[in-house]
Amino acid sequence: MLTKVDHIGIAVHSLEETMPYYEKALGLVPSPVEEVVSQMVRTVFFEVGETHIELLEPTSPDSPIAKFLEKNGPGIHHIAFASDGIEKQLELAATNGCRLVHEVPIEGAGDKLVAFLHPKSTFGVLTEFCQPKGE
Amino acid sequence: MLTKVDHIGIAVHSLEETMPYYEKALGLVPSPVEEVVSQMVRTVFFEVGETHIELLEPTSPDSPIAKFLEKNGPGIHHIAFASDGIEKQLELAATNGCRLVHEVPIEGAGDKLVAFLHPKSTFGVLTEFCQPKGE
Repeated sequence: MLTKVDHIGIAVHSLEETMPYYEKALGLVPSPVEEVVSQMVRTVFFEVGETHIELLEPTSPDSPIAKFLEKNGPGIHHIAFASDGIEKQLELAATNGCRLVHEVPIEGAGDKLVAFLHPKSTFGVLTEFCQPKGE
Repeated sequence: MLTKVDHIGIAVHSLEETMPYYEKALGLVPSPVEEVVSQMVRTVFFEVGETHIELLEPTSPDSPIAKFLEKNGPGIHHIAFASDGIEKQLELAATNGCRLVHEVPIEGAGDKLVAFLHPKSTFGVLTEFCQPKGE
């Protein structure tokens, strides 16, 4: 079952240029900036209720986020839903025609299991499921 | 102050074609379908935690959603944050360089006051503030 919108991932050219909008114009508080080497991004999170806004800045032209920015410019990249049973969630999606980017969950940032659905099978929305490990 | 992600608006060509993905593959429960004549859209909402996913289908080629679909194809259209003080929220955004689509809040669906920030001033993310009337 999906329990909440865990985070909304937003592709940006530069964290430093974008963070003042979220901090000052929206009044949100940033987490420390972290680098996710495997995804070739630097990220920062802003908490809003039970959801986080995740800004994603590419650290290499080979990063998926760099390719997204080249094609679309900055903007919303993906929605991540928290699930209380990620394997069953993936099975439900696959049974109902979704193309899975990950057949089994992989380890994501923040000690979570994560898996993506391909946007060609989700009406244009890159969709992530995530679940804290051990839950 | 922003209190939660109220909803995520997603542009779709057809509610009937898209709803089975949200209902069956994601396991979410739809609201009744409604038409918002002023926006030239038909909408349906799916609750996930404190947030709703809003699907938006244009009812006319002149609908802003029809224009979005023509340019981008189906996908995420906007993020709406709930605010506990929408006038102050708009003032904070304007003071910090945001371009306001609505200088003062307008009446939205569901008996709410709503106002949008222009995506050119929010790093590509069409951003809505909303507040239930009378709060």
